[in-house]
Amino acid sequence: MTSEAPTRAYRRLSVEERRRQLLDAALTLFAHRAPEEVSLDDVAEAAGVSRPLVYRYFPGGKQQLYEAALRSAADDLRQCFAEPPEGPLSHRLARALDRYLAFVARHDAGFSALLQGGSVVETSRTTAIVDGVRRAAAGHILTHLGVEDPGPGLRMTVRMWITSVEAASLIWLDQDKEPPVEELRDWLVEQFVAGLVATAGRDAQTAEVVRSALALESAEGPVGALARRVLPVLGGAGHLL
Amino acid sequence: MTSEAPTRAYRRLSVEERRRQLLDAALTLFAHRAPEEVSLDDVAEAAGVSRPLVYRYFPGGKQQLYEAALRSAADDLRQCFAEPPEGPLSHRLARALDRYLAFVARHDAGFSALLQGGSVVETSRTTAIVDGVRRAAAGHILTHLGVEDPGPGLRMTVRMWITSVEAASLIWLDQDKEPPVEELRDWLVEQFVAGLVATAGRDAQTAEVVRSALALESAEGPVGALARRVLPVLGGAGHLL
Repeated sequence: MTSEAPTRAYRRLSVEERRRQLLDAALTLFAHRAPEEVSLDDVAEAAGVSRPLVYRYFPGGKQQLYEAALRSAADDLRQCFAEPPEGPLSHRLARALDRYLAFVARHDAGFSALLQGGSVVETSRTTAIVDGVRRAAAGHILTHLGVEDPGPGLRMTVRMWITSVEAASLIWLDQDKEPPVEELRDWLVEQFVAGLVATAGRDAQTAEVVRSALALESAEGPVGALARRVLPVLGGAGHLL
Repeated sequence: MTSEAPTRAYRRLSVEERRRQLLDAALTLFAHRAPEEVSLDDVAEAAGVSRPLVYRYFPGGKQQLYEAALRSAADDLRQCFAEPPEGPLSHRLARALDRYLAFVARHDAGFSALLQGGSVVETSRTTAIVDGVRRAAAGHILTHLGVEDPGPGLRMTVRMWITSVEAASLIWLDQDKEPPVEELRDWLVEQFVAGLVATAGRDAQTAEVVRSALALESAEGPVGALARRVLPVLGGAGHLL
């Protein structure tokens, strides 16, 4: 009877459950290895099934399995920047980045392989999935900024920051997750604030956004700390005014 | 005699001249079309030679020709950020960006296809070529900052900005080169200054770099203008100090 148990469990999975099981096995493998280092045999072994069974569910083989896993990961990632629109912007961004960087840490090798380019499984479809995540993140951030119809200055600033967050994440992984994640998170929030403030100098919509956002920040919060740390550096720049 | 002239010109090219001619034809084609829209026949026609001749010089076909063209373009691009280490940082960066953005404008479709990922000719080798350009640009910028041994904070800030410049260039091309190139250039310089200042708040080396750089800037220059435009936006943020 004990020897029959796994077989019965094997048979009892519905089509959807089986698909999900294979996908989870693939996700785990693709998260921690470059796609070229994952074979269908690896997926079959990790899921405890035969290679033909994997092919029955994913007749497109590794590429199809990779894209399905990527779509599933993209759904998770898209949620990182969803955050109740309450409290200071810096706190909301910090919480979103905590989730995002935790995702990056959980999917280290896969995240790097996907975004570094030149991967064997990279196609216009995988690029479109990644771009969809970027667009969703930009949409969430503009919502946090209270903007429904962003002009080019604000849109560009938000997109630049999202690109910076991605690039910083890759460098962070490459540096064995140094600096500590909290430090990277705070630095990324500060870089966003700085970028917004600079754009505000030439864009009225961004200036309005910055004024509203700063009104919600406090001296005790991260933006207050940033202001107090930066002011002494600028102390000798009176000749610019 | 007139009908013989092209044939004699054709015969007279040395191996190196012929290679260069084919490469120039390929560069022009790859600059303005996605790689999948360029065939070896197109290259042969543009160079006024036969397809077998193209194959004699580039037996690896389109992929080899693409990589050779990319290497040649990368050499040009690498020079964009080389600039005499004199005068205010903002002026040096503006001149470097003028060259960089002129390159981007000259190679529009090819630049986008290369950096947007998912291209048919993208391999780990093309990725390595692009990364080499990024590293060279970072090296030049650190030289402009007068830093020989950059710590993690400064290195990260410079790399983030290079990524931002790339991403902004792609968006700029996608928006039919709007805003005008001078405006994009000034905005990118300002974003770098803002990013450096924010990092200076938590990194002593960057703080020193910012102090030295600001000392060379003037009230009439771009950083003075930035300071005067940004101050009114921050006017209501006294509660943060």
